[in-house]
This record gives sequence, C-alpha cells and structure tokens, in this order.
Amino acid sequence: MRTIHVKTASASYPVHVGSNILPHLASHLRKLTPKTSSRIFVLTSPQIWALWGRQLASAFPKEHLPTVLFLPVGEQYKRLSNVERLAIELSQAGADRSSLLVAFGGGIIGDLGGFLAAIFMRGIPYVQVPTTLLAQVDSSVGGKTGVNLTTGKNLIGSFHHPLAVFADVETLETLPQRELRAGLFESIKSGIIRDPKLFRFLEQNHESILAGEPAALQRVVSASVAMKAEVVGIDERESGLRMILNFGHTLGHAIEAVTGYKKLLHGEAIAWGMLAAVRVSRSRHLLPEKDAARMEQLIYAYGPLPHFRARIPDLLDAAGRDKKNRAGARRFVLTSGIGNAVVVEDVTEAELISALESILREAVR
Amino acid sequence: MRTIHVKTASASYPVHVGSNILPHLASHLRKLTPKTSSRIFVLTSPQIWALWGRQLASAFPKEHLPTVLFLPVGEQYKRLSNVERLAIELSQAGADRSSLLVAFGGGIIGDLGGFLAAIFMRGIPYVQVPTTLLAQVDSSVGGKTGVNLTTGKNLIGSFHHPLAVFADVETLETLPQRELRAGLFESIKSGIIRDPKLFRFLEQNHESILAGEPAALQRVVSASVAMKAEVVGIDERESGLRMILNFGHTLGHAIEAVTGYKKLLHGEAIAWGMLAAVRVSRSRHLLPEKDAARMEQLIYAYGPLPHFRARIPDLLDAAGRDKKNRAGARRFVLTSGIGNAVVVEDVTEAELISALESILREAVR
Repeated sequence: MRTIHVKTASASYPVHVGSNILPHLASHLRKLTPKTSSRIFVLTSPQIWALWGRQLASAFPKEHLPTVLFLPVGEQYKRLSNVERLAIELSQAGADRSSLLVAFGGGIIGDLGGFLAAIFMRGIPYVQVPTTLLAQVDSSVGGKTGVNLTTGKNLIGSFHHPLAVFADVETLETLPQRELRAGLFESIKSGIIRDPKLFRFLEQNHESILAGEPAALQRVVSASVAMKAEVVGIDERESGLRMILNFGHTLGHAIEAVTGYKKLLHGEAIAWGMLAAVRVSRSRHLLPEKDAARMEQLIYAYGPLPHFRARIPDLLDAAGRDKKNRAGARRFVLTSGIGNAVVVEDVTEAELISALESILREAVR
Repeated sequence: MRTIHVKTASASYPVHVGSNILPHLASHLRKLTPKTSSRIFVLTSPQIWALWGRQLASAFPKEHLPTVLFLPVGEQYKRLSNVERLAIELSQAGADRSSLLVAFGGGIIGDLGGFLAAIFMRGIPYVQVPTTLLAQVDSSVGGKTGVNLTTGKNLIGSFHHPLAVFADVETLETLPQRELRAGLFESIKSGIIRDPKLFRFLEQNHESILAGEPAALQRVVSASVAMKAEVVGIDERESGLRMILNFGHTLGHAIEAVTGYKKLLHGEAIAWGMLAAVRVSRSRHLLPEKDAARMEQLIYAYGPLPHFRARIPDLLDAAGRDKKNRAGARRFVLTSGIGNAVVVEDVTEAELISALESILREAVR
C-alpha cells in the first residue's frame, strides 16, 4: 500500500492506494470517526454492493454494521433530487454531525456522496472509497463535489475534502475493460501535463496495465494521485495552477455535452479533447513534433476511441459555456512538451475550429 | 450608517446598518464585484420587489440593470427544488463564477440565496440585503445558509459568508408589526446572553422601537449585529461559544416543529423557548429571581405571544432531534444573569418537562 498526502490550505488527508484494502476498511474507518459513538453510513450502487459489499461489511462487528444507502448507476441520477432523498434517509436513520459517510463506488457516487456530506447539517465528515479507475486517479482527490443541472454538468457543488481516500485496485477487477481504458486517459493527462516518468511507464507497460495487473495499476494510480495532490496542494480553488488539470477538458466537456453524455465515457471525451489540445499546441509551434507524436500514439495505444458526430458551431458554443470561463475570457490549457502544461488566454476561434475539424475527420470515420 | 466588521477564520466582511442605504446600493455593489464585467443577479420575493425594487434599481445604469430572480414568500418554498430551479435560471441567464448574487428580502431569501451562492458552480460571491428585522439582526450575519428537508428545518446547508451585508432600517417601514415584534425577540436574546446595555435599551425604549423609529431601530440592529459578529468571530463553526446563540432555540425549534411551522413566527417560538430556558435557569438557582423577572417582563413587553397547543412528549421528541445534538449528548443554553449565557449538558428531562408545563399553562390560556 502506498500513501500519498494531500495538503491544501483548508485540509490535509491521506490517499491510500493498494491491494486488499477493503477487508481492513472497518478498522481504518473506526479510527477516523469523530466519536466512538459515531454512526457510519455507506453510499453505494446496487451493483458495487453486490460485488464488493460483503468484503467491505465483513470486518465490521455484527452489532455495528454500517447503514447502507443506494444510488442507482447512471449520470441521470446525479441530481439534487437524489441528494434530497438521501439526506432525508440520513436524517430518518438518525445521522447527526458526528456521523461518517463513506462514498463507495465510482465517480458519480463520489461526487454526489461528497456533496451530500458537504451540505447535510452544513457538513459532516466523509471518506472516499473509489472503485473505478477514473474515480481513483481523479475525482476522489481534490475535494470537488457536486451534481448536474439540466443545463450542465457539475454546475452545483462544493469544495469538501474527505478525511481519507482508500483506493483498492483489486476492485478494478470487476470494472468493464472500456471503463478501465477510459480512466487511463486521465492518467495519460497526468503524464502529459506534469509527470514524464508516468508518461513513460504508460508507454512501456501498456499490456500489463490493460490486463489489469494490480502492481502496474497501483503504480499508475499512485503516480496520478501524487500529481494531482501536488497541484491541488498548491492551488486548491483553481485560481492558477489547478487549471492545468483541465488539459483536454474544455473541448472534452463540449464533446460530452453535444453528444448528450451518451455516446462517450468521460475519459473517452477527454481523450478526444486532448488530441485536439495537442494539435492546437503543435500547430502554434509550442509543442515539438516528436512529443506531439508520442502523445497521440499513447492516446491511441489505450484506445479505441468511440466515434461520434457533432457540428463545430455546437461544440464551440458548448465550450463557451464551460464554467471555467470567467466573464468572457477563454482560458485554454496547452502543452509545450511531455510533462509540461501551459495555460493561455489567446487561443483563437480559428485555431479551435481547425483542431476540431482535424479530430472530427477521425471521429466520424 | 454604522459599520460592524465580522472577522472569522475564513472570512472578513462589513455589515452596514443605517437609513437610506438602498438608493445607493448600486455603487456599493459595483465596488464589490470581482470584475468590472461581472453580472449582478438579485434574488427577491415578488412582494419586496413591488415595495422596494424601484428604489434598489433606480441607481443602476439603465444598460446594466441587475437580472431579478424570484422566490415566493413562505417557508414551504425553502427547499432544494427551488434552489435547483434558481440555479438553472442563473445558468440560463449566463451567470458565471464572477457573477454577484444579491439576496434581497427576509430570512428565507437570505438563507436560500446564500445557499444558492454557496453551491452554484461550487460558490459565487453574494451580498445580503435583509429587509426584515429578523434577517437584519440575525440570519444575515454569520454565514449560515440552507434549506429545509421534510424531516426538519435547515438540515441542508453550507457555511458561506457574504461579501457584505447592507441592512437598511427604512425597509422595516413596510414590515407587518407582528414580524417586527418577532424579530425583536432575537435582539432580546442578544441582550440576555451577552449585552446588558442592549437589554436596558430594549427595556427603556420599547415604545419608540415598536413605533419603528429609525434611530431606535438602528441602535437595536447594530447592537444585535455587533454581538453576533463578536461571537461568530470567536467561534465560526459552532464548536463552542457560538452555541450560546441557541439560547431559547432548542425548545423554540421544537415548538415550531410540533405546531407545523404555522401557528408561530420563528421569533415568537424562540420567545416561548427563552421563557422556558429562563425558568430552567431560575429553578436550578443559576439565575437570580430579579434578573429572571426582568427577562420575562422584557419578553412580555414585546408580546403578545400567540397561544399554541402541544403535547410535552412531542416537544421533547422534537427537541431530541435538533441537529445540535451530537451523538446523544443534550446540550442546552441557560442564563446566569442579564448578559450571561451558560452552556450545560446536564439538563434533565424532568427539568425540561417542568419548564414546558409552565409555559404551556400560559400558551393554552
């Protein structure tokens, strides 16, 4: 097990990455509760609970089993109405400010569970136990929590850090291969923007990683988490450095929105967005050809990327509505080489159109 | 105009209390927006906007009028579904992270508006412009925001401080007399728990205060705000001193809950709760007779308190569910004299029953 420490202005907590963590979770959690009398509540999906619930519950004493709350799987359930229902269930089950909420599942469980913890009684402690690669490498770290509006993803939310994160790579065994690949695109992003060693590891070990070897996955997850922890530690609220984490995300979010969040997984849309960002970076001669080629090859090595159709004006429109755009300025993250990200504000519409045309030629093939 | 500064661990902001502030609000707000291009949104009720909207809007340049969002009047609208609707309206109207939200109205507008600002795009800046006495003396200061669940009031919320509070006592002109009286009970609480001078001012000037004289109201509002600012500055998150602000509130909340939030205004329920707390304090000889008598007289001077019926077991049950009760311990705020509050954990059920019986004898008369 490797432990990475996240230290921000407002919080400090460990992220544990390893194998065989779930069977020991009960005693870890007990040490984290504010009081010995604190109740523990687990938010999970029916699927994850069916696969891994027994392993998690096994180590709890029979008379102190956690209370389990369920959220169905699917982006359409990541809404305030479910937060309200779960909050009512918490209050009816006797949760109070010293209760501990455990978000046990993928990114939606983590985002919604963290938000529920952020606003229930104005904030109760919570722990993330991510069970998808995307959640382990990205969404469980950094304190961003939230839900969607009909007008956009994650438009409602809070910054609320967990007391700890437990990422057990064994749970990735039951993850569909497509979701594993999708999560790996976020790790590729970590490599591109800040970690050349991770980039190389992803290049050189792509077979064992895609085969789900725990040791390889532990290396990928812990390096990705360490990169994100460092960035979030420097810039918790995304006023500066944290912006680089959005590499590939401005256009990736636009692609997700325009395709109705159905055709592509988040990581896949980000992969397309990264390809576009690589092409903008290369065509303004910010990024050497050689690095651009390695980046594209690495992305393709973890493909295939599902095709999609979209109109360029719709993509530009959706990108303009991205919540990172403050009062008009168009921030965009480019790369100047493997391990280096650059935030610029002068990307022109013509550059975006050209990059979008180039990826759309592949995407609609 | 008097300005009180709130300084907490996480925020620092001014509370301006005075007359004739509304017509100058536009220029104050412009100085507070993060960018010159920032949009301003006003959340208000149709009633307040009809009465005071023209005065607020008059000083804005015609080409930069704020966008106005509405919440109907009534506790039943203080729900997550309205937060969601308003968030959608904000995003459709083009609000972004640099937009400023102005909560212009009573306590419900302030609580829900502050919460909307807390969670829209994970937090945007906001300003409180309270128009009821209760909101001016209490809810607009301290950063507590939130909405109700069907299972309890304010069970969902955030700590999110405004950039500034503007309390214009002129707006109290159009406040129904009963609401003015109800708000004054929170000021009486301020006097009892921490400000003997305010207590005396409330005793000696009760006619001019109830007549709504602006100078008298400014004195009451600013003293109440100063007391709360001091307490919140010492203990932002209610781990210690801030608890004293709950004087009268444990049983007051229970009375509100048991009577379905219909029969009594919040301040009126708190007044009954304070009478009960005074009687518990007196009967355990913590509070001298003379002070107890002055406290009761002052509460009655700002009455009449509406009668209500309730069963004692229901009241005890509701008090037990109060969200201030951490994993079982029954915290209760008593008083040991005018200007002094004491937080105890050893109030017995017998003491509560005896105090409740005593107020119920008056309440059902």
